[in-house]
Amino acid sequence: MSVSVTELGRRAKIAATRLAFASTGAKNSALVAAADLLADRADEVLAANRADLDGAESAGMEPGPLDRLRLTEARIGAMAEGLRDVARLPDPVGEVLDGWRRPNGLQIERVRVPLGVVAIIYENRPNVTSDAAGICLKSGNAVLLRGSATALQSNVAIVDILRDATAKAGLPADCVALVDDVRHETAIELMQLDTVDCLIPRGGHALIQSIRDHATVPVIIDGDGNCQIYVDASADLDRALDIVVNAKTSRPGVCNAAESLIVHESAAAAFLPRVCEALAELQVELVGDAAARRWWPAMGEATDDDFAQEFLALKLAVAVVGSLDAAIDHVNRFGSGHTEAILTRDLAAARRFTTEVDAGTVMVNASTRFADGGEFGFGAEIGISTQKLHARGPMALRELTTYKNVVWGDGQVRN
Amino acid sequence: MSVSVTELGRRAKIAATRLAFASTGAKNSALVAAADLLADRADEVLAANRADLDGAESAGMEPGPLDRLRLTEARIGAMAEGLRDVARLPDPVGEVLDGWRRPNGLQIERVRVPLGVVAIIYENRPNVTSDAAGICLKSGNAVLLRGSATALQSNVAIVDILRDATAKAGLPADCVALVDDVRHETAIELMQLDTVDCLIPRGGHALIQSIRDHATVPVIIDGDGNCQIYVDASADLDRALDIVVNAKTSRPGVCNAAESLIVHESAAAAFLPRVCEALAELQVELVGDAAARRWWPAMGEATDDDFAQEFLALKLAVAVVGSLDAAIDHVNRFGSGHTEAILTRDLAAARRFTTEVDAGTVMVNASTRFADGGEFGFGAEIGISTQKLHARGPMALRELTTYKNVVWGDGQVRN
Repeated sequence: MSVSVTELGRRAKIAATRLAFASTGAKNSALVAAADLLADRADEVLAANRADLDGAESAGMEPGPLDRLRLTEARIGAMAEGLRDVARLPDPVGEVLDGWRRPNGLQIERVRVPLGVVAIIYENRPNVTSDAAGICLKSGNAVLLRGSATALQSNVAIVDILRDATAKAGLPADCVALVDDVRHETAIELMQLDTVDCLIPRGGHALIQSIRDHATVPVIIDGDGNCQIYVDASADLDRALDIVVNAKTSRPGVCNAAESLIVHESAAAAFLPRVCEALAELQVELVGDAAARRWWPAMGEATDDDFAQEFLALKLAVAVVGSLDAAIDHVNRFGSGHTEAILTRDLAAARRFTTEVDAGTVMVNASTRFADGGEFGFGAEIGISTQKLHARGPMALRELTTYKNVVWGDGQVRN
Repeated sequence: MSVSVTELGRRAKIAATRLAFASTGAKNSALVAAADLLADRADEVLAANRADLDGAESAGMEPGPLDRLRLTEARIGAMAEGLRDVARLPDPVGEVLDGWRRPNGLQIERVRVPLGVVAIIYENRPNVTSDAAGICLKSGNAVLLRGSATALQSNVAIVDILRDATAKAGLPADCVALVDDVRHETAIELMQLDTVDCLIPRGGHALIQSIRDHATVPVIIDGDGNCQIYVDASADLDRALDIVVNAKTSRPGVCNAAESLIVHESAAAAFLPRVCEALAELQVELVGDAAARRWWPAMGEATDDDFAQEFLALKLAVAVVGSLDAAIDHVNRFGSGHTEAILTRDLAAARRFTTEVDAGTVMVNASTRFADGGEFGFGAEIGISTQKLHARGPMALRELTTYKNVVWGDGQVRN
């Protein structure tokens, strides 16, 4: 029988208290042990995954999700390698972020500490189970994992290995726990669990809406990526062509893919026919406003909904604007706070765009696809925050920490 | 007729977009102009406050809250001086928090930016209106202020001045707005307003509970301060006496006052009779566990509820523990995440306590009363966070900001 969510939270809290000041060595040992055990017990994981796949196939799951659910020896190998990578990253805990002395002699230090208990609600892919657990463990957080029903048996097998590895390293097994009761109600319980210090939902609109409706615990939203690229009047159009094609087509189903292209009217004649031809050849469906359609009449008509939508597919909405101001307004109006890019050779335009556009990440002359923990050099990624509180953009180890104010005195009292 | 909360939010969002990159000079001009206008128009504010006081008196308000509601020329002078102080503080916006180059040549910078629209729900005291608005303005945030019904006329007069000053400095007046429809429903609306980037509730249990029940916007909880002081076996007992008396009695009604005293059993005989005598002389009501009562038999019996409670009064719960471990367990069990202190001469005990106690601020050999924005040297305070996400402990300008990742490239695409 499943352990209740409340009880899992209680155990995680106790484990987190110990994990918070565990040595880097112990945490790394747990990560390496987990990697070793994943390799040793790959058959066990593959058999569990086979059962999940069988269930999903009989339930008529589409090929896309089915592929994301599927584990192979190579994918398990990549999960293990991911855990070893995280073991090699510097431990964020204990870093002194700031420190100063007051006139009365008090010495104040802001020291980086773990958040405590992190809960993650996610979808289909079982590799998230080990990736997320690894990042939480290294940053000193106990983790409550709540994957999808379709991946339950895979997740049970993986978490079993992670818990064994944690115990083997002398840390509480409860540092990693799976909510294996996958009814909708348990997700809601998790959103309201007192023992959760931070909840990170990784999923689509329905999950985010459910979080808004139900969550009482602190949340970091990993929301839509309606990424936009603005091609300025002064852009290098050869580079712009490469960047737009890369941002739209290199992996259209991910959150940092571009969904809109905004072109300055004075670059439209030279750029739009070229970029539309290149995109059309790559099977990208184009929709645009009237000014854009003038340069590529095959384009469908774009509504505001198109500009506001994260297609996650080979589809791009195109607009032509008369000025940098209009571009910034368009970007801020339709953006989701994820990633926006300007392609320009004009310093003033770049400075205004980076200053005035309100998003987690603002790119200058680079593909939106670089908004990623790995590409940022974090060595891992737990998600991409589209909110402003706590963390913004790609999140990894540091973003799963908070700080504690430690004040050293020698008898000071306040007048 | 009042403007709807939704419309106030919409206007604040537009104002915030401009304020986000306003110059430090313009923001400081607005603050200084507000200070000048508060002095010039003090009569107007005092008349409005007189009307609030009359209403509150007829409604039978107690002397304590009545005093907090009362403005005088001196208090208005202090409000103006507070605004001038904030004008003198460094502008947090634009600070580059971190920056690095990737192997592919991308230059990544984390730049400090305002949160956007900050909403503050607060109680009786009208000086919070100008204090909070000043801190928000300096940190580049538009602010939606929602004070109590009892202070409505005072707040209307103060916000009128703040808006005039903001406009005088060439910034949108909508950078500061008062929710002047003070029905309970409008507070709930504010908790769910899409345009709010961060809500800071400053109030008691009922407000915090309402936030938990209703808030869908990101929140920073300024919660209870159940501050505890642990007197270790090795403490300097003379200093400990001063610190405990200071922490309990210097201002018992504030959140950083001590509410519990935990004494190591080997210090109990030498310390408890002394400290209890000193506290009893200062009219402090003492309750304790059995071991504590042995050393001061006049003490009442303390329940777990007493140890968990923020008395905000001249009352102290006293416990005796057999070890540092027991002290840390007690502190973590009953703490509210605000401020905890250890008094000790033992380095190992100090290091363990500061590491293992989970609170926003941990003091060593100093009064809990120093957990305060002013005492931390921030020059201002918008509240004290008792949550872990985003900010912890005293909050001022920096804590009202987030960051933006700005990525500079020269044509990079992702493989």
